[in-house]
Amino acid sequence: MSFINKLSAAWATNNSLLCVGLDPDITKFPPHLRNQPAAIFTFCKAIIDATADTACAFKPQIAYFSALRAEDQLEAICDYIRNAHPTIPIVLDAKRGDIGATAEQYAREAFERYGADAVTMSPYMGWDSVAPYLEWKNRGAIILCRTSNPGGSDLQFLTVEGKPLYQHVARLVADKWNTNGQCALVVGATFPEELAQVRNIIGDMPLLVPGIGAQGGDIQATVNAGKTANGTGMMINSSRAILYAKPDEAAGEDFAAAARRVALETRDAINRFRVGAVV
Amino acid sequence: MSFINKLSAAWATNNSLLCVGLDPDITKFPPHLRNQPAAIFTFCKAIIDATADTACAFKPQIAYFSALRAEDQLEAICDYIRNAHPTIPIVLDAKRGDIGATAEQYAREAFERYGADAVTMSPYMGWDSVAPYLEWKNRGAIILCRTSNPGGSDLQFLTVEGKPLYQHVARLVADKWNTNGQCALVVGATFPEELAQVRNIIGDMPLLVPGIGAQGGDIQATVNAGKTANGTGMMINSSRAILYAKPDEAAGEDFAAAARRVALETRDAINRFRVGAVV
Repeated sequence: MSFINKLSAAWATNNSLLCVGLDPDITKFPPHLRNQPAAIFTFCKAIIDATADTACAFKPQIAYFSALRAEDQLEAICDYIRNAHPTIPIVLDAKRGDIGATAEQYAREAFERYGADAVTMSPYMGWDSVAPYLEWKNRGAIILCRTSNPGGSDLQFLTVEGKPLYQHVARLVADKWNTNGQCALVVGATFPEELAQVRNIIGDMPLLVPGIGAQGGDIQATVNAGKTANGTGMMINSSRAILYAKPDEAAGEDFAAAARRVALETRDAINRFRVGAVV
Repeated sequence: MSFINKLSAAWATNNSLLCVGLDPDITKFPPHLRNQPAAIFTFCKAIIDATADTACAFKPQIAYFSALRAEDQLEAICDYIRNAHPTIPIVLDAKRGDIGATAEQYAREAFERYGADAVTMSPYMGWDSVAPYLEWKNRGAIILCRTSNPGGSDLQFLTVEGKPLYQHVARLVADKWNTNGQCALVVGATFPEELAQVRNIIGDMPLLVPGIGAQGGDIQATVNAGKTANGTGMMINSSRAILYAKPDEAAGEDFAAAARRVALETRDAINRFRVGAVV
């Protein structure tokens, strides 16, 4: 099944646009987990099991694994998602960007080694830095367009032919690069009016939207700006707010139960502003 | 010692602007190496020892290791360079690009785990995607500016305020980001006149220049366009042409001797067009 079809099915089955970001930071783990031999896997597995029915995607951020020599735990996490929750797409957040033979290696890393359904990448090196990923016909290429960080404007907001650069990227992907329906774009939640402009350019192409939760984007404005006509079209990511939710000790919550509670709250907050979603 | 000082010393000591790229492709290895348990390390170690006195830098391309689950061999290669050839800087070619806490993780990966002296990165996400690397005061941040691939023009050649985007990137890095002399730029050899324009913008900042050798850039035009007043300022990269040089069997060469021969030829071809270099 293609990435887009798998994502569409997850939107429907779980009635959710929530993407759960897996950015494992051991210093934020519950103390009893920190010194275990495969602490990252154990922590992420608990989060995955607690949130799988609330999410349309899981998005592991590879940098957190690579810094700790923990690629083996990332492999185990991806294997676990595929086996225990096979209907939930895996988005490998790697923001790769290289050309030709090198991009082929990165595609192998994402799709063969980790078995990801989609991978994030930069558009800066152009078409031939994206094309090798599209050779994997059932996988997705999620291209940076307008990012939610302050420095995002340094390049993305430069004016090209009267319009900001990120709109050119959106048009380039929609009109030229998305030859087989495999592409999606990253657009941050912190600029809802820009999200709306991108949606207007790209039709029903999916968006990966970071910037709610810890980064403070407004959910109502984000959903209104980014949804498609049928009330889907987005993977709205939350990482830290879910992973490191504060347990309600009076209610006897552990970290995974707290993560589930926040994931459900976030999914439902998103659904309040969708058309056609049952809340 | 800072990256820039280490690079400057290597330029002088080895009388070389040649950067030897380590893009290990097992299918191109000599047959007797292919099935060894640490074939990548063994191959790269032989190349490193054969070329260390001809080079100003080694540039391992991480994608080739990641696709094969061979990060341990990349660690071993970086350790080996640091121990056996401690004066040669290690440039980790990773083209990372992410923000805040994630970029901190990528910086740890490059500088702590692999002990690289510098790492390549994309400018697309702006200043806060570069800043975390600069916290490592003795390390270098090598930022994509104008790349040598055909698709490089898709974004980099868009016109912003009358000038192509890559020139804005060059100016941004030179005027704002290079606060501590840690930055360098990637500019391909395939567009010498653009290389000259970047050199004009950035003063003496180092350039990493791919695109000679297998990619066909012209050495004379590249050196004339990119060198600084003292005839340095560049790491001119060659990967495949050196790694997979065809041995002269009549002369009894093995793959490492062939690599050395081509590395020396390339270094000398570069030196012919430098000012102040002894050929």
